[in-house]
Amino acid sequence: MKVLETGLRVPGYKFSAVECGIKNKGKLDYSLIYSDKPCNAVGMFTTNKIYAAPVKLCRERINNPVHAILINSKNANACTGEEGYKNAVLLTGETATALDIDPASVLMSSTGVIGVQLPVQKMKEAIPGLIDSLSPDNGSLVSEAIMTTDTFPKSLAVSFPATAGDFTVAGTIKGAGMIAPDMATLLCFILTDCPVHKKILDKIFRKTITSTLNSITIDGDMSTNDTAIILSPASDEHINGKDLDQFENALNMLLSRLSEMIIMDGEGATKMVSVEIMGALYEDDAIKAAKAVANSLLVKTAIFGKDPNWGRVAAALGYSGAMVYEQNLSIYFDDIPVLLKGAPQTYDKNKINEVMSKRGFTILVDIGLGDCEAKFLTTDISYDYVKINAEYTT
Amino acid sequence: MKVLETGLRVPGYKFSAVECGIKNKGKLDYSLIYSDKPCNAVGMFTTNKIYAAPVKLCRERINNPVHAILINSKNANACTGEEGYKNAVLLTGETATALDIDPASVLMSSTGVIGVQLPVQKMKEAIPGLIDSLSPDNGSLVSEAIMTTDTFPKSLAVSFPATAGDFTVAGTIKGAGMIAPDMATLLCFILTDCPVHKKILDKIFRKTITSTLNSITIDGDMSTNDTAIILSPASDEHINGKDLDQFENALNMLLSRLSEMIIMDGEGATKMVSVEIMGALYEDDAIKAAKAVANSLLVKTAIFGKDPNWGRVAAALGYSGAMVYEQNLSIYFDDIPVLLKGAPQTYDKNKINEVMSKRGFTILVDIGLGDCEAKFLTTDISYDYVKINAEYTT
Repeated sequence: MKVLETGLRVPGYKFSAVECGIKNKGKLDYSLIYSDKPCNAVGMFTTNKIYAAPVKLCRERINNPVHAILINSKNANACTGEEGYKNAVLLTGETATALDIDPASVLMSSTGVIGVQLPVQKMKEAIPGLIDSLSPDNGSLVSEAIMTTDTFPKSLAVSFPATAGDFTVAGTIKGAGMIAPDMATLLCFILTDCPVHKKILDKIFRKTITSTLNSITIDGDMSTNDTAIILSPASDEHINGKDLDQFENALNMLLSRLSEMIIMDGEGATKMVSVEIMGALYEDDAIKAAKAVANSLLVKTAIFGKDPNWGRVAAALGYSGAMVYEQNLSIYFDDIPVLLKGAPQTYDKNKINEVMSKRGFTILVDIGLGDCEAKFLTTDISYDYVKINAEYTT
Repeated sequence: MKVLETGLRVPGYKFSAVECGIKNKGKLDYSLIYSDKPCNAVGMFTTNKIYAAPVKLCRERINNPVHAILINSKNANACTGEEGYKNAVLLTGETATALDIDPASVLMSSTGVIGVQLPVQKMKEAIPGLIDSLSPDNGSLVSEAIMTTDTFPKSLAVSFPATAGDFTVAGTIKGAGMIAPDMATLLCFILTDCPVHKKILDKIFRKTITSTLNSITIDGDMSTNDTAIILSPASDEHINGKDLDQFENALNMLLSRLSEMIIMDGEGATKMVSVEIMGALYEDDAIKAAKAVANSLLVKTAIFGKDPNWGRVAAALGYSGAMVYEQNLSIYFDDIPVLLKGAPQTYDKNKINEVMSKRGFTILVDIGLGDCEAKFLTTDISYDYVKINAEYTT
């Protein structure tokens, strides 16, 4: 298994992106992913009860053979009612006609401001341009076109060996704010030229998302548009046995790296902190504990201020719902213990300042009750987070 | 019923506060509330599994006849293990000896930094000074001494008429950060000269707290030390009938005003926003919906930025767990509709800017499914919130 490059390039797929005028002039905002061959698709979508029109459309079509994904940024097409849904149907229909494929084989994803109808006429007129510029070399344009408050495009390709030869699994993702667990974290598109049986693809994708995209948090809010889709060519010649392990490892590496990119680019984030829980009695407890610490606003502001205020970590553990007892609890910042089995430790202030000054470090918690573990990635909350989010639509 | 004054003054109670050197020089940090007569006490405490030593002590003693509450700020006496608990027992014991009362009739509350032992020697030596300066006129000193990041002392007295004459119910509270529902919100002490049967006092106090202190949120975190205690003289001559209604109304007014003071003084808060839910199918849904909107970091930063980004309100409703359907949902900023039964409304930007520029306004949500309601008070999240919390212990 090896990381090929930062980029979205997979044999069998073509890409394009254009300026359609949804964002300000000079910025790509509308893109297309296309496969000549029909693909098996698996999607994970927001569990928010208020979900966008394109999420509704994807849910209806995800079990069809899929050829294309049409994507726009800057407008979420959420809270746009029947008209919003009709617009998604119309635009995917126009794309299908121009590509001479079944309309039900085209998915759509949107991200951006809620409650504004898509500029459907402009978007319809831009479709021929999207199709004309489809190329295997344009993956990086898609990564750029799906960005909203992201500060850099995020993509990666990984190759892995299998019995029939080398395959590639690659993906692109956009994130920044409104990232929370229990969902597929905003927009993420994963493509592979490796044929995987649909049921197995479904199982591996869901499992991998749980420990990667669903284990990161920036602000604890959950979006109306979160979508993660994987495409794999539909074929009777599926990989199996050890080849499946290779695929799963590659997918896991890809999604882990993409998750880290999301966290590193969290709105206003200056740090990436790994919250690692060990010693929980149940796995569910470990996850609850990691999530509560990772989401705590008081912990996140303390990280920003390089303040080793481990009491806030203890408080978050206490309200997490996980079973914890003060007298069993140990907390470390990297390898420096600040609490050992309930006893506060004296620590070297310079050393802890060194740890907390790093771009990334670990808050390790040993609950001291069992042997279950969980890990969440989180960011700090900075002045810039407030600035970015105070001024988003105005 | 009338509001007597800002202040903590109730017939039968004496107060004192001293500088004990837990805070910086020149600041009151150690205080005492004392009643000659034994009182019925009801307490509501944090549901955090990591709770402070004084909370443990209060839980053990709350059903005893109570004479006194000893309070310190700047040190939470939490995560301090057996030594922390022994210190609380020792200090309340010394206070009891000096006052010649049963040690089990003295409660203790602490607030401040977690994980540091109390300066027990200094606190022991300060007890005679506390007792010597007890006076009915010193209530305002207690309000000052319990402050941590609060910017002003918070207290209020309300009088109400009853068959046997007028009674008073008064209280003091400290809050600022780490305020979240499902607990009794940091430290709150309510005193009355009105004799209420302990079981009835318990019922009325819990009910009133639910709609006041448990319906406010600043940062969604839950403390290790939250405590709300009410004292009422133990007597066989309890009030009853309409007098109880008068008492309940007065207590409700008192706790509502104290809750508002907490929100107005939220760390770095520039606004107080009332999140009002109507039209929920179940009361539980209404509460979940109000809480999710009030806690959403994206909603709170939008409030700070005067950004009418109602999509974030819709998104929070969608993940709240409450039953909501986009097509039934309406959202208003004060009386300006921004979403009506799922349809985004065009609004006058100047008018909405006027609303959001006010110190306080209402986000009204009509879920459109039933007739259950709930209300939460919340604040915005500002640059100052981040600043205050990034630099708390360092």
